[in-house]
Amino acid sequence: MIKHSATLAVNEKISALRAAGKPVLHLGFGEAGLPVLPEIGAELASAAGQNAYGPVVGSASARASVAGYFTRRDLPTDPEQAILAPGSKALLYAALAALPGDLVLPTPSWVTYAAQAALVGKRVIGVPVPGEAGGVPDPALLEPALAAARREGADPKLLVLTLPDNPTGTAAGADLVKAVCEIADRHGLVIISDEIYRDLTYVPEAHLSPASLLPERTIVTGGLSKSTALGGWRVGFARMPAGELGRSTTERIVGIASEIWSSLAMPMQAAAEFVLSEPTSVTDHVAACRRLHAAVSSAVHSALVEAGAECRTPSAAFYVYPDFEQLRPELTSAGIRTGAELADALLDNHGVGVLAGEHFGDTPSAYRFRVASSLLYGETEDQRWQALRSENPVELPWIADALDRLRTALRSLV
Amino acid sequence: MIKHSATLAVNEKISALRAAGKPVLHLGFGEAGLPVLPEIGAELASAAGQNAYGPVVGSASARASVAGYFTRRDLPTDPEQAILAPGSKALLYAALAALPGDLVLPTPSWVTYAAQAALVGKRVIGVPVPGEAGGVPDPALLEPALAAARREGADPKLLVLTLPDNPTGTAAGADLVKAVCEIADRHGLVIISDEIYRDLTYVPEAHLSPASLLPERTIVTGGLSKSTALGGWRVGFARMPAGELGRSTTERIVGIASEIWSSLAMPMQAAAEFVLSEPTSVTDHVAACRRLHAAVSSAVHSALVEAGAECRTPSAAFYVYPDFEQLRPELTSAGIRTGAELADALLDNHGVGVLAGEHFGDTPSAYRFRVASSLLYGETEDQRWQALRSENPVELPWIADALDRLRTALRSLV
Repeated sequence: MIKHSATLAVNEKISALRAAGKPVLHLGFGEAGLPVLPEIGAELASAAGQNAYGPVVGSASARASVAGYFTRRDLPTDPEQAILAPGSKALLYAALAALPGDLVLPTPSWVTYAAQAALVGKRVIGVPVPGEAGGVPDPALLEPALAAARREGADPKLLVLTLPDNPTGTAAGADLVKAVCEIADRHGLVIISDEIYRDLTYVPEAHLSPASLLPERTIVTGGLSKSTALGGWRVGFARMPAGELGRSTTERIVGIASEIWSSLAMPMQAAAEFVLSEPTSVTDHVAACRRLHAAVSSAVHSALVEAGAECRTPSAAFYVYPDFEQLRPELTSAGIRTGAELADALLDNHGVGVLAGEHFGDTPSAYRFRVASSLLYGETEDQRWQALRSENPVELPWIADALDRLRTALRSLV
Repeated sequence: MIKHSATLAVNEKISALRAAGKPVLHLGFGEAGLPVLPEIGAELASAAGQNAYGPVVGSASARASVAGYFTRRDLPTDPEQAILAPGSKALLYAALAALPGDLVLPTPSWVTYAAQAALVGKRVIGVPVPGEAGGVPDPALLEPALAAARREGADPKLLVLTLPDNPTGTAAGADLVKAVCEIADRHGLVIISDEIYRDLTYVPEAHLSPASLLPERTIVTGGLSKSTALGGWRVGFARMPAGELGRSTTERIVGIASEIWSSLAMPMQAAAEFVLSEPTSVTDHVAACRRLHAAVSSAVHSALVEAGAECRTPSAAFYVYPDFEQLRPELTSAGIRTGAELADALLDNHGVGVLAGEHFGDTPSAYRFRVASSLLYGETEDQRWQALRSENPVELPWIADALDRLRTALRSLV
């Protein structure tokens, strides 16, 4: 049975509660929560006349802009290596469908990878993430997990990394990425590096892509949903590896794309081309978004730690992933036995929506959940612009109030 | 091996030939070849600010507009029955993936159905179309084909109909639709009725949807690619059946959609909502497109018949599907033994691009191919608007010249 994506489902549940007049602090959904930069909207508008079918992989000029985007990030890229699609999710699906073998996933990781693996008939080998950062399997656990999987008849051939990570809001450092890539290389794994949050790394220079280390066996995916907050526009792209594996995989992905979605809508390709050419208006906007995400995530992190959680310090994106194990006696007494029950209690009793760790493949009994801080920026477009422009956004009244509500809810838990 | 969609591939090949300076009369691709109605472009532009993720099935207002569109066509529809997606192709894929059993297809039929069936592991049972019209299996052949398929271990449970049809450019009449639905009902087949060309039926009142006859077991798909020429925008929709089968299939389709493409881009949903609300500006434009398609298809049909083809008279869309069997001796002498060789000869020797019947599942040895007339309307936006506004478009110089080139090429064949 294929289930409706958990993140989208929680979003729809919370929207329904709100529509029914119930006040909900929406921390459940991975949306950037920020307005469209007018210059990007103008590009979409001016491309409305583009109604012809185009190449499955994207127009030549859009592919060139994807190539330029990666090339400026120390990953020299030929336009032939670029594919655009309606969302990087679609490209991740096609890559999983195109490549043979079972899938190794960090645990926890984004809900969709495992669901997609199930759709295409792959087994999932989950490997816990290390204490320092999420998005990568703990290097000390990866080889034993591969060996155990093979003993059980699985055929691990693919490894998805999330750099930086959802749900933990952390950017794995270069040492971790190197250690994981070395093992992947030794075991012949192909890496799919989901870098959709890359431009929201709080220290962008710290980013190391596996494509720098294993260029012939790493697919990198990205999109406009996070850094430019265009989730509802559905714009994704991939950088395929140079070389034979890259070429044959591209051919299979194009075959799948051509039978499911044909291509990214042409006006969206024009908008993507503009964003990925990175004019100053765009890079300034992304920098402002990054600062806002960092400030509010950091405040949410503090609130959680004050309430008794262990929690990695966020270093990217707009998530934190607390662990309330220290409150197990109190939570158990309150009848809360799992992460999902903890999330339910937060929503039902305190109007705070979060997503339980089990949706990310984490142990159901663990008191872990993902908090998305990005929907705290305001209810109106005007509030969100103010938040983006503020030197100290956590002191804006609507954000300060929301943080207070969160602290109150967390205190009432035990 | 999943191959790049044949229609998209021929389009790319012809574009490359043209880019290399070779003059090609492009009759190979199923694109409407007409400009964007400015009012629709303006709707897309004004929705550029819509960047939030929305429900997988589409926004409430977009679903209501889909429901209204069908309700005005004598198919009362609740918004809960409506799903939007990036292309009706995506919804056809999801429906095939969601529903059990093997697939019965009219032969010839659109290239994508069989390719999608292969992707989801279904067998295809091809049944020739009748002489009167394409898009439906010949009722006299359908039951024997089902029996034969079952004897060979197949499990036919789904039937795709194309109403009106690509590649034949014909609209199956009510009698044919009724006869096929009666057999489908008796054998418990679920019908997927691809009605993307519905508003391009030259006599729209003649259309009968299987959803009127078998309301609880018919899925209808449609989109904006053909009637409003927005192929490059990738906007599709489906009307799911009311009742239990409809509800459970919708749930599975939503599961698949949420893991592959999430939703149709929100600005595109806004544009779809406008089009499907059918203001006069849109209905007048669609009527003008329909008249132009009818006039030029009819002229292309005459040219083919004059050249010795048998060919159904077009009654919808912008295709004709000639059969040059009568020229077999001459073609064989010229070294042309198959439909694909005939298509190659037309492209390589005469610069006329068409798509051989085998891409539509037809017998390779048959001298049949699809001619798309819609790319004759002009090379510039201005010419296309003139064609749309003309009382007698086939006498516009660029269309008359193109028809002459086609006649000359057909004469030189033998």
